[in-house]
Amino acid sequence: MIRAGIIGATGYAGAELVRILSGHPDAEISAVGSVSYEGKPLSGAYPAYYRLCDKICENEKDVIKKSDIVFAALPSGLSQKIAQECFCAGKFFIDMGADFRFKRENDYRRWYHGKFIFPELHEKAAYGLPELFRENIKGSRLVANPGCYATAVSLALAPALESGLISPDGIIADCSSGVTGSGRKITQNTHFPELNESMTAYKAGCHRHTPEMEQTLSTVSGKETHITFVPHLIPVSRGILATCYAKLKPGVTMEQLRNAYEKRYGREFFIRLLPDGCTADIKNVRLSNFCDISLHIDSHTKTLIAVSAIDNMVKGAAGQAMQNMNLMLGLDEKAGLTSLPPAF
Amino acid sequence: MIRAGIIGATGYAGAELVRILSGHPDAEISAVGSVSYEGKPLSGAYPAYYRLCDKICENEKDVIKKSDIVFAALPSGLSQKIAQECFCAGKFFIDMGADFRFKRENDYRRWYHGKFIFPELHEKAAYGLPELFRENIKGSRLVANPGCYATAVSLALAPALESGLISPDGIIADCSSGVTGSGRKITQNTHFPELNESMTAYKAGCHRHTPEMEQTLSTVSGKETHITFVPHLIPVSRGILATCYAKLKPGVTMEQLRNAYEKRYGREFFIRLLPDGCTADIKNVRLSNFCDISLHIDSHTKTLIAVSAIDNMVKGAAGQAMQNMNLMLGLDEKAGLTSLPPAF
Amino acid sequence: MIRAGIIGATGYAGAELVRILSGHPDAEISAVGSVSYEGKPLSGAYPAYYRLCDKICENEKDVIKKSDIVFAALPSGLSQKIAQECFCAGKFFIDMGADFRFKRENDYRRWYHGKFIFPELHEKAAYGLPELFRENIKGSRLVANPGCYATAVSLALAPALESGLISPDGIIADCSSGVTGSGRKITQNTHFPELNESMTAYKAGCHRHTPEMEQTLSTVSGKETHITFVPHLIPVSRGILATCYAKLKPGVTMEQLRNAYEKRYGREFFIRLLPDGCTADIKNVRLSNFCDISLHIDSHTKTLIAVSAIDNMVKGAAGQAMQNMNLMLGLDEKAGLTSLPPAF
Amino acid sequence: MIRAGIIGATGYAGAELVRILSGHPDAEISAVGSVSYEGKPLSGAYPAYYRLCDKICENEKDVIKKSDIVFAALPSGLSQKIAQECFCAGKFFIDMGADFRFKRENDYRRWYHGKFIFPELHEKAAYGLPELFRENIKGSRLVANPGCYATAVSLALAPALESGLISPDGIIADCSSGVTGSGRKITQNTHFPELNESMTAYKAGCHRHTPEMEQTLSTVSGKETHITFVPHLIPVSRGILATCYAKLKPGVTMEQLRNAYEKRYGREFFIRLLPDGCTADIKNVRLSNFCDISLHIDSHTKTLIAVSAIDNMVKGAAGQAMQNMNLMLGLDEKAGLTSLPPAF
Repeated sequence: MIRAGIIGATGYAGAELVRILSGHPDAEISAVGSVSYEGKPLSGAYPAYYRLCDKICENEKDVIKKSDIVFAALPSGLSQKIAQECFCAGKFFIDMGADFRFKRENDYRRWYHGKFIFPELHEKAAYGLPELFRENIKGSRLVANPGCYATAVSLALAPALESGLISPDGIIADCSSGVTGSGRKITQNTHFPELNESMTAYKAGCHRHTPEMEQTLSTVSGKETHITFVPHLIPVSRGILATCYAKLKPGVTMEQLRNAYEKRYGREFFIRLLPDGCTADIKNVRLSNFCDISLHIDSHTKTLIAVSAIDNMVKGAAGQAMQNMNLMLGLDEKAGLTSLPPAF
Repeated sequence: MIRAGIIGATGYAGAELVRILSGHPDAEISAVGSVSYEGKPLSGAYPAYYRLCDKICENEKDVIKKSDIVFAALPSGLSQKIAQECFCAGKFFIDMGADFRFKRENDYRRWYHGKFIFPELHEKAAYGLPELFRENIKGSRLVANPGCYATAVSLALAPALESGLISPDGIIADCSSGVTGSGRKITQNTHFPELNESMTAYKAGCHRHTPEMEQTLSTVSGKETHITFVPHLIPVSRGILATCYAKLKPGVTMEQLRNAYEKRYGREFFIRLLPDGCTADIKNVRLSNFCDISLHIDSHTKTLIAVSAIDNMVKGAAGQAMQNMNLMLGLDEKAGLTSLPPAF
Repeated sequence: MIRAGIIGATGYAGAELVRILSGHPDAEISAVGSVSYEGKPLSGAYPAYYRLCDKICENEKDVIKKSDIVFAALPSGLSQKIAQECFCAGKFFIDMGADFRFKRENDYRRWYHGKFIFPELHEKAAYGLPELFRENIKGSRLVANPGCYATAVSLALAPALESGLISPDGIIADCSSGVTGSGRKITQNTHFPELNESMTAYKAGCHRHTPEMEQTLSTVSGKETHITFVPHLIPVSRGILATCYAKLKPGVTMEQLRNAYEKRYGREFFIRLLPDGCTADIKNVRLSNFCDISLHIDSHTKTLIAVSAIDNMVKGAAGQAMQNMNLMLGLDEKAGLTSLPPAF
Repeated sequence: MIRAGIIGATGYAGAELVRILSGHPDAEISAVGSVSYEGKPLSGAYPAYYRLCDKICENEKDVIKKSDIVFAALPSGLSQKIAQECFCAGKFFIDMGADFRFKRENDYRRWYHGKFIFPELHEKAAYGLPELFRENIKGSRLVANPGCYATAVSLALAPALESGLISPDGIIADCSSGVTGSGRKITQNTHFPELNESMTAYKAGCHRHTPEMEQTLSTVSGKETHITFVPHLIPVSRGILATCYAKLKPGVTMEQLRNAYEKRYGREFFIRLLPDGCTADIKNVRLSNFCDISLHIDSHTKTLIAVSAIDNMVKGAAGQAMQNMNLMLGLDEKAGLTSLPPAF
């Protein structure tokens, strides 16, 4: 059994990874790390895990020591030293934060106010979006797990951009996220009575997943691509819905679009391109690693409307991390990720 | 006291109008009409009204007879004959459906599959969006109350278009609505366990509020204007959030934008232009006739992001209808509409 | 106009009182007090009030000075000195906390760990449950507004106890509350993703509204009465549902029960005794001062099941406080409290 | 692989069984049956299953033919003939409805208005509550899967009754259920805007799970036991919380209670007796087969408050059915049921 350790296990992404890893046929949780719960059982933070995962939270050193692969689910800025330590100790490492997502240090500096401490590590890091960059991940010992919004938007648009069916200018990504996306830390605006029956946008046009999306879409389109991204918060626990708008190149038909998406995603287990007449819904991917995508055309304005839905905690975080682990370690990419999403 | 009658009082818009009219200082509910509840008390359909509005539902003839002004909250296609009847009997009439919203019969034919039965009535009808067309409403005896999405989107964009600060091409209106927007009729997808924890788009790029928005925005901009409109359904009871995207003309600043919105809306009681740093939220307008608007610029793509929030049942239906009634009858436009929205 | 001041206006109960008082025909809000928002506008805490109540929060001294009647919506223990100050200054005072609810200092000591600082004030205080103790309230300048659970349970059971139709032994009050009941202070268990889709009991058998209920029910029944009370937290914003169980005396019929309730509540505007076949629902009283009550008999165990529903923030807090104000000042008891509850 | 067929697969319980069975290591879904979807893929009813379970729905005959064990998730009254057919064909049969739950035909007649068509089958049927009647289930080919409320209440009270620590008189079971408990059929009161932000009781004192609870509790206590049962509907999708009240026998302590529960449930995987200070919450058992139980004493009224939480669709339906299948077929009782509940 592969020994997998999780640093930051009491945050939402870490706790979700515990749930998913527990069902992996070839891996076991070797240790869970937490600063706030050190010395206490994980089920103290999450009573749903009572008697099922009562492991005592440890410090990061001990987690690394006990593990073949280490996942870090930490606020940005805290992963680089851990990555270096894992690297030196010959461990595999997956960063669920933003520290290794950027090719250009400038992007990281500007949006995260940090710097590349070990530049050579960043060169080794693969960006862990398997459906677009699988081969890079396979050979890597250090993977940067993508941001949740970046996953949903990049998957929704990549085939259309790659195939040149849409213009790379004027793309809009209008997204909505469930509240787990803001983390477990309590805040006034996530207090139940304030969030219930509400919906608002936030960081309109200036959210820091923007450069991450642009990096991926630029790679895919082969030219510098900019997008306007606005996230919203909705009163559900899980899920991201990305409604993406792009100008169709003259004469482009739905058939051409479907062909491009089928070509890119036809063999992907975790991407479900929905049939005509269906629309992606966060409900249908909850608690699963699937990304549902539906394609629509506004014919009177010649606009592609690509809608994607993921569970922000699974394909947008823990599930994709485990998918990356599977690839890094040469396991079946789907291992531990094949459960049906609940129907309701 | 003005005698106000409501046809279609057991639908959501009609029932909401009952609630709002009950608080009007100068009007009283003379009669409520319903086909499905004829002969039964309105509170049979809505137990919240028990002992407060136990009026017996009547047929439409009787409602008209007992009223000075008649509101029709009916499925599209059913209002034209009622309007004609009211007109002949010298009554004021407000249609909360789509029958009188279009200037061009072709739009109505194409999107609603109906025709103009009494073309001269359509010429008399005013489009009841007071903040943009107040003077037309004041002199009218027949008002077409706007659609909920059309209200939110038109108000969000009008000043920017009118002042020429944005391009009329490539506008996107990405909207989300609470479930009351789909009406009281039960359907599988509005069954609680199916809708709870879900979010999806519907009628992407082909919803029939599109031509209504385009008619208003074309009037305001002075040129044929097209937009891409995608509505979504979210698991809340009330509210519409409209996130609208438009290309800024070169060099346009936030200051210019705010000036244009202030100039248009500065004296409007029901429009609250939010200060910088705030974003419109459906929570803050619930159960009120307010439309909150916040302005944002994505400076790296030179895009205006205008966000508006209304209660789809109030400013998007019953409240705006009452505002129109006030204007038609020469009352204080705000009468009966000044309650504070609940803080939570 | 009566000048009404609110100390603790940024808590939920205080903010709700602002909303309700704003609609009062004979009173105006003279000042709002807050420690955390002193010097800032109330709408900074509640953007729903933007431009409608932008009053600057003041300290308690200033609030008292500017007011004829003072409401204190404060944590328990903080009202006694304010009450004394108001008393000396000849102001009316309504305490929305627990400081003046108990006749016996021992109850207050045991459950709230406080003491009676000015015992003579406690003798003057009336317990503000108008439907049971109206005459005491009318003559009073100091009213203790009841707890939300205590209101729902006392109203549900009083007529049956008073009339001797149920046994005073073995009464169970099983209640559920919306989340505003726990206040505006953020906590882990009221963080949206933790509370959403949850339901649990808390303080089972040891909640401090128990002695308050017992004090009222003992008064009503004329003998020491004990009850078992368990509150639950449910994922809605507002509302308390109280399902109360009591042993019927031998041979008691539904007709006798209805007569007892009709006799007690038949002329009460704010209590709606529902017809047979209906059951009280928190939805139907939201944002209103009504208490809906339905009566049911389990004939095979000879048990009365009395179900009551209130809005915990209105009849359970701010609305009842305003009802008490109306009584204290000799106004129409219903003034400002007659709006219809929303139908949805 | 064991071939398992599901009749009534498009209802909520049937669809949930599809999800759970899909993860079983030793069984596979041989066929799914549905009247309303016959000839169509199951994923047409539940798009969450798209590409994962696109099996075509068949009629019941074909389902039986293709299966070693048949589950019927049907309205009451429709299972007896199917059971007989399975019995004659030598198949195992689990009825998820009420047809085989009663020992006494009179109970079934009175509460379900049906009769025992094949009385000998009823004698063979085991009542499938494994934690109380495991040995009966092991030897059986026909199991009646318990009702959801009956499961939650029986498990909460059995050890206390069995050990004689509480009085069998005057027991109250106050329960709340998520909306999936009312099934997939659309109704006005489960329309999202009507149910959202609501809570009400229904069938107070006369719900037909009452005799089922009484049958089990009478068996356990060894004497005819009656209870008062009131269910409530709350705006969540899944979960039952049962708050049960019973008079403690004189002098009974929490330690004695815990010992009785530990003795009965200490080795049960699916029952988690929570430590002192914790309270059962439906959130912590969602999507799992666990039943969490917490014990509380109201010492001033000498009352046991036993709170249990289950997922009504899993331990209350499909999960328990699969647990029964495992027992009937001699498999590991936990097979396919060991996933962690989601932490949020």
